[in-house]
Amino acid sequence: MPRLPFPDLVRELHCVLSCQGVPDARAALVARLFAENQRDGVYSHGLNRFPGFVALLKSGRLDPHADPVRVGGLGALEQWDGRMGIGLSNAHAAMGRAIELSRQHGLGCVGLRNTNHWMRAGAYGLQAAEAGCIGICWTNTIPLMPPWGAAEVAVGNNPLTIAVPRADGPLLLDMAMSQFANGKLEVYQRQGRELPVAGGFDRTGNLTRQPGDILASRRPLPIGYWKGSALAVVLDAAAALVSGGQTSQQIAQQGSEYAVSQVFIALNVTALDGADHIDATVNALIDHLHATRPLVPGDAIRYPGEGMLRIRRESLAQGVWVEEGQLEAVRAL
Amino acid sequence: MPRLPFPDLVRELHCVLSCQGVPDARAALVARLFAENQRDGVYSHGLNRFPGFVALLKSGRLDPHADPVRVGGLGALEQWDGRMGIGLSNAHAAMGRAIELSRQHGLGCVGLRNTNHWMRAGAYGLQAAEAGCIGICWTNTIPLMPPWGAAEVAVGNNPLTIAVPRADGPLLLDMAMSQFANGKLEVYQRQGRELPVAGGFDRTGNLTRQPGDILASRRPLPIGYWKGSALAVVLDAAAALVSGGQTSQQIAQQGSEYAVSQVFIALNVTALDGADHIDATVNALIDHLHATRPLVPGDAIRYPGEGMLRIRRESLAQGVWVEEGQLEAVRAL
Repeated sequence: MPRLPFPDLVRELHCVLSCQGVPDARAALVARLFAENQRDGVYSHGLNRFPGFVALLKSGRLDPHADPVRVGGLGALEQWDGRMGIGLSNAHAAMGRAIELSRQHGLGCVGLRNTNHWMRAGAYGLQAAEAGCIGICWTNTIPLMPPWGAAEVAVGNNPLTIAVPRADGPLLLDMAMSQFANGKLEVYQRQGRELPVAGGFDRTGNLTRQPGDILASRRPLPIGYWKGSALAVVLDAAAALVSGGQTSQQIAQQGSEYAVSQVFIALNVTALDGADHIDATVNALIDHLHATRPLVPGDAIRYPGEGMLRIRRESLAQGVWVEEGQLEAVRAL
Repeated sequence: MPRLPFPDLVRELHCVLSCQGVPDARAALVARLFAENQRDGVYSHGLNRFPGFVALLKSGRLDPHADPVRVGGLGALEQWDGRMGIGLSNAHAAMGRAIELSRQHGLGCVGLRNTNHWMRAGAYGLQAAEAGCIGICWTNTIPLMPPWGAAEVAVGNNPLTIAVPRADGPLLLDMAMSQFANGKLEVYQRQGRELPVAGGFDRTGNLTRQPGDILASRRPLPIGYWKGSALAVVLDAAAALVSGGQTSQQIAQQGSEYAVSQVFIALNVTALDGADHIDATVNALIDHLHATRPLVPGDAIRYPGEGMLRIRRESLAQGVWVEEGQLEAVRAL
């Protein structure tokens, strides 16, 4: 299993992006974000997405030179236009601005429109948590799920992140509204395995654990059935209103996913009374989870983000895991 | 089926609360909130909870005279202490303050600690939406669910609300993190019915649709399995940090549910550019959902809050539905 030191991976990606004409500071940032996703074990939004991202740059449908601009707002709530720039650096700028607003106002919120895929939702939650803030952010997407009761795709899977700061590593929720991502369904299908729980409907409208049936029907299941469907709808509406941007339906009318809408909120809890207790509070919560009796004796109850932090430590100690041939593919871009 | 004009129901409840020594303006507010829950069809947090609420007042464990006070904050982010007052009026004051902050700062956030059960989460989202804001709020609770992989209860079901303003009635998400509330499991059990989908684990750790088995095991299922479990954990941590109050685990150590922690966020989207398009945007989203092809021919795809608004209209036109004997029980309090 090939492993690469994290700084080397960043350097490789930076080099490719520079060659594609991405301005240097932005190339460094985007390279770091892709490399961090891989470092943290989020392989679904790491190196595997990098060739597609470079292809998008080459196609000219993304503008690597576009800076996001503030187009409106009031006080600690701002609207920014991503100007069809790079989704990762736009999102990083937007959360950065929300954090900055939170230094003065206690919290900050940025609605970002006309932006592109940010890859990993959790990255921008982590950014806030590393700055001592609770970070909340979400994006809409092109429709990927049937709303509850429907036979056809009409809502996005609209990933949501909530990150809570902690000295030894944050709590991190990073979840899409579908029970399984399409990529995950494909992995199970290739391996000939059933899903651990129902992940969608087959063509006849029955819940199923067969990944192939769900991919064929295009009916992945929202988390919690009607609940995740409703959450996806309100997140979409809120993203469009806060940013002044497009809803999932409007994105669908374009035919492919671009010019999406996102929301970034930073809550500056370290500015509050009791900030010296943040770590004690979160650590006690973690200790309590760890002490909870498991269903399967010997299993560990994990806090959100625990697996990610474990992989990050491994990656930093032993190098970042890279799939066979993946690095060669990057170098050939 | 007995029905009562909405103003009469408010008057009946107001009268009982006044007799219990609740100051008049607060009695009027709390009566209205209970009556609105019933009016909107949220029977789980309407009249059925009123006798228990009055019993709590009589027990002296709630202080009906306590006003919430601001204890800290920075700019648009404030911490309030609910001083063990009435949960409904404390929550209403907190969202009211968040809305007020949003007038000046674009958004506002209030963390409320030492407060009590707010009954219906959606009520305070609606309050924000009626003021032209996107309202986001959540509460922690005493532990009611096993976290993912656990055999015993250790996380709250931590209800979350997101409301989006709209002239003809808001979009309203109001959901707990368990797939079914205990009250709902009890109803299915009394009726001898299976749940429509798995709602928890039996004593042997298998997923089941038998409500009695879940009540016996005390293992209700988080929405989306591991995802709802993680969401419940981060909402708990965030509520404790923003409010400076207790986590679910600390609430558990008291032995019963009181002095909980809550967060209220108001996003003043009507102050933004494009505010004149709010209704057009949300209505287009609703029209799109309504036009989506259903799994079962003839079924309607509903937007979040649609059923609630339909029951509200019926209640205002024909009177609020009251269970047989429920009004007599209220009058006897």
